[in-house]
Amino acid sequence: MRRLSDVQARHDPRGIELDQVGICDLRQPISVLELSGEWQPTVAKVSMSVNLPSKFKGTHMSRFVEVLGRHREVTAWSIPEILRDVQATLKATVATVEFHFPYFISRQAPVSGASAMMDYQCVLCGVAEGDEITTVIGADVPVTSVCPCSKEISERGAHNQRGVMCMRVRPFPSVHPADVVWIEELVTIAEGSGSCPVYPLLKRPDERYVTMYAYDHPVFVEDMVREAAVQLKADERVQWFRVRATNAESIHHHSAFASVEWDRDA
Amino acid sequence: MRRLSDVQARHDPRGIELDQVGICDLRQPISVLELSGEWQPTVAKVSMSVNLPSKFKGTHMSRFVEVLGRHREVTAWSIPEILRDVQATLKATVATVEFHFPYFISRQAPVSGASAMMDYQCVLCGVAEGDEITTVIGADVPVTSVCPCSKEISERGAHNQRGVMCMRVRPFPSVHPADVVWIEELVTIAEGSGSCPVYPLLKRPDERYVTMYAYDHPVFVEDMVREAAVQLKADERVQWFRVRATNAESIHHHSAFASVEWDRDA
Amino acid sequence: MRRLSDVQARHDPRGIELDQVGICDLRQPISVLELSGEWQPTVAKVSMSVNLPSKFKGTHMSRFVEVLGRHREVTAWSIPEILRDVQATLKATVATVEFHFPYFISRQAPVSGASAMMDYQCVLCGVAEGDEITTVIGADVPVTSVCPCSKEISERGAHNQRGVMCMRVRPFPSVHPADVVWIEELVTIAEGSGSCPVYPLLKRPDERYVTMYAYDHPVFVEDMVREAAVQLKADERVQWFRVRATNAESIHHHSAFASVEWDRDA
Amino acid sequence: MRRLSDVQARHDPRGIELDQVGICDLRQPISVLELSGEWQPTVAKVSMSVNLPSKFKGTHMSRFVEVLGRHREVTAWSIPEILRDVQATLKATVATVEFHFPYFISRQAPVSGASAMMDYQCVLCGVAEGDEITTVIGADVPVTSVCPCSKEISERGAHNQRGVMCMRVRPFPSVHPADVVWIEELVTIAEGSGSCPVYPLLKRPDERYVTMYAYDHPVFVEDMVREAAVQLKADERVQWFRVRATNAESIHHHSAFASVEWDRDA
Repeated sequence: MRRLSDVQARHDPRGIELDQVGICDLRQPISVLELSGEWQPTVAKVSMSVNLPSKFKGTHMSRFVEVLGRHREVTAWSIPEILRDVQATLKATVATVEFHFPYFISRQAPVSGASAMMDYQCVLCGVAEGDEITTVIGADVPVTSVCPCSKEISERGAHNQRGVMCMRVRPFPSVHPADVVWIEELVTIAEGSGSCPVYPLLKRPDERYVTMYAYDHPVFVEDMVREAAVQLKADERVQWFRVRATNAESIHHHSAFASVEWDRDA
Repeated sequence: MRRLSDVQARHDPRGIELDQVGICDLRQPISVLELSGEWQPTVAKVSMSVNLPSKFKGTHMSRFVEVLGRHREVTAWSIPEILRDVQATLKATVATVEFHFPYFISRQAPVSGASAMMDYQCVLCGVAEGDEITTVIGADVPVTSVCPCSKEISERGAHNQRGVMCMRVRPFPSVHPADVVWIEELVTIAEGSGSCPVYPLLKRPDERYVTMYAYDHPVFVEDMVREAAVQLKADERVQWFRVRATNAESIHHHSAFASVEWDRDA
Repeated sequence: MRRLSDVQARHDPRGIELDQVGICDLRQPISVLELSGEWQPTVAKVSMSVNLPSKFKGTHMSRFVEVLGRHREVTAWSIPEILRDVQATLKATVATVEFHFPYFISRQAPVSGASAMMDYQCVLCGVAEGDEITTVIGADVPVTSVCPCSKEISERGAHNQRGVMCMRVRPFPSVHPADVVWIEELVTIAEGSGSCPVYPLLKRPDERYVTMYAYDHPVFVEDMVREAAVQLKADERVQWFRVRATNAESIHHHSAFASVEWDRDA
Repeated sequence: MRRLSDVQARHDPRGIELDQVGICDLRQPISVLELSGEWQPTVAKVSMSVNLPSKFKGTHMSRFVEVLGRHREVTAWSIPEILRDVQATLKATVATVEFHFPYFISRQAPVSGASAMMDYQCVLCGVAEGDEITTVIGADVPVTSVCPCSKEISERGAHNQRGVMCMRVRPFPSVHPADVVWIEELVTIAEGSGSCPVYPLLKRPDERYVTMYAYDHPVFVEDMVREAAVQLKADERVQWFRVRATNAESIHHHSAFASVEWDRDA
């Protein structure tokens, strides 16, 4: 076959470096390591990018897909390996990668002990700038929230709803792989910050239990964020976090939210 | 300019008539008539189609956009006019049109009387087959739902959540324009079928009121659909309806739903 | 523990049978059988329902989750087993189940042979009415489509875009399990109906190939549906199908679509 | 009526200030000022927030809805007024507001002159920190993009697709209201950065024109961002911008993107 021009490698005269050039909305089967040590198969939506120096016209997009094909096992400590591979394969100084995926944990109902799989939307992502790499682990955790104001001002009942705790944590890069923050830990912290965890399977005695447990632990969306923040600040592996709670208010058509971002070094 | 070939008008040899050929995901500013007699400006997502006889290779898609430009006012009785225009302009026997749009009603809080705009996702659509035209009016109405089981088996509290009532109604074609079923009527029926209406603005005395009102009127998702069905069956303008209720369960990460479809002539 | 009331089992006085009562938006890890004989792990979004006779107040929703937990392997012939289990466990005459999931096939680029995983959004679903069971298999398959009109009336170039072929097929119930229609077959038919298949990984010689191949095979959205329809009608395993093609037109902000539904017995 | 407790105003012992507490996903009819001087009615999705000092347990969420009800006309210079109102009504030092809405511009086809309405997803938002206010204006603008590599390495044709230019601009606060950056200007810049604008209505001579015009102006996603960046850097009203272009690649199932963020003071 004749030699095909490398149009992307040509010189660009505009003098503008690009922060990110890459691919997004690519789906890929991956395996995620559980705290239990098992590998869990799931499906990720992936974004990958590099910076583009001002002198080059374009990036070679197909190389992202080639890199991705070499890394099917995704963990907090494989993210740096993938970033190094992106930097090397695309000859770039800055690289990013994001894996968004559903993750399942078997959950037991609190009274009957009936168990089923519960899904959490999670994220593992990272940025490499030269030698420096930062990694973020995240989980969106549904919880029940009972409104303290509604409970206190009413003679009976209290409005409640499904809320979602969006947990994002950046551990210190020095943390040993075996000591990184796990999705399971984020789920535990998030669930402890709502009025009651949400379960995949509840029989009647369980429903009675969660109804009363939630009613006895009312929280505002503000409380949910603060409870999680207190836990994360106390965890010395955590360098930075952002927590956002959103309640799909059962008395409104809009939602209420609260968020806080925190940096141990700030 | 030279004469450009009409590729679409060519003969197709495969002998397959198509049910629908058209455009979708087109956005258009429209005005919708309120029950009050006022015109409400809003933004619609539009689909339009015609059938395509087996002998023609294609449809002239740009004509849909031209038809749409001639009809900015959308009501239950302008749908037939638009369908006639589609049939004539595209020389087709079958035509469909769908307008999906947010619709606003000013709502007063039940105690304080504080008012604000509340949005309902609505639909006006129709099908013309030759001379016969059917029209469907729909509204997705959020409500509060309190679980009767949770309330009865628990000593205090009851799980509740935002539910959505998807109301779709086909009035008899013989119904006089001024007597068609209005979005405002569907909202009233749907809200009467939940534990309590959802409001855009509630002050503390209102929150107390809706909390207790909802707690005093627990309904399953099955009840919500049946309550609405009873109302619609009793309305002699209604030839057909479909009601689906979906509850974003506050104790689960999945939803519960119920639905019923009914035809007066069946 | 005290005996908790079975509120759902109570009598309902309104005399309205419900078509469907169930759960939706539940996520579950499943395994899908490949044509190759391998099991592919993926993540499904699930809906399940039963009919509800007029005399009962409600359904026992938790039982759907219990049934689901017993069926992790999903194939065209496990759908009937799941439906039978739903009917028995919920004591219902009518049952439905839907699994929507991403499915991956390893694809080789046409010239370089470079391979990567390509995702297709798929569906396996079924309805049981008493003893009668129907099953539907579906795949949404992206393709490239080049506009024949644009190509013919222009001196150079032709607008093209990503299109999606939504294939839904109901095989005859009598078809032997080993002979059912496979997702892989739907993908082949759909890809043969566009201007060119879409690939996950293309190197420069591949890009040259697909560009010219697509340009040499222009198709309207109408052609895409008809090509697939011709193939499916010729397949004697197929009792019913519906094909819808949607093109995200590169020259418009809206899409063009075509669809056809066909029943061998009609 | 009895005095109801103000639970939100109570003391919180955890010592954690929250960055944002507010409402989101609220829909509201608004009017947006066109460059022409006309007011355009549309429907916005709104987010509003304030910071929450560590000593307070909660925010009074209903006040956001009250503030919103006082501001139906939304322009680059009404954002600061709304922010001041939020700060005063909620007694907060930091406030944010975001309006996301479809915006329509009448567009004429390039040859036939046929006109129709074209929609652009836009945003007007702002942040107040004490006396300091920053405002951002944004528009997501669809364009056609023809791949320069595909064109050069192929003997005929070139893959092309719909791309979206996400334009976000922060003008200097000192810019006079009449001189702010307008949505119409962002649309012009974005469309000039693709291979060809996207139109709502094209007749055959127009389709010929845009096919050849696009083919004659191939651009990578990188070029699209750089072209827009050159324009925005040259505009002295602009203090900061971020441009992201995303192409729904017609030869892949994933998208390609590029982005750049720039600050005049950096």
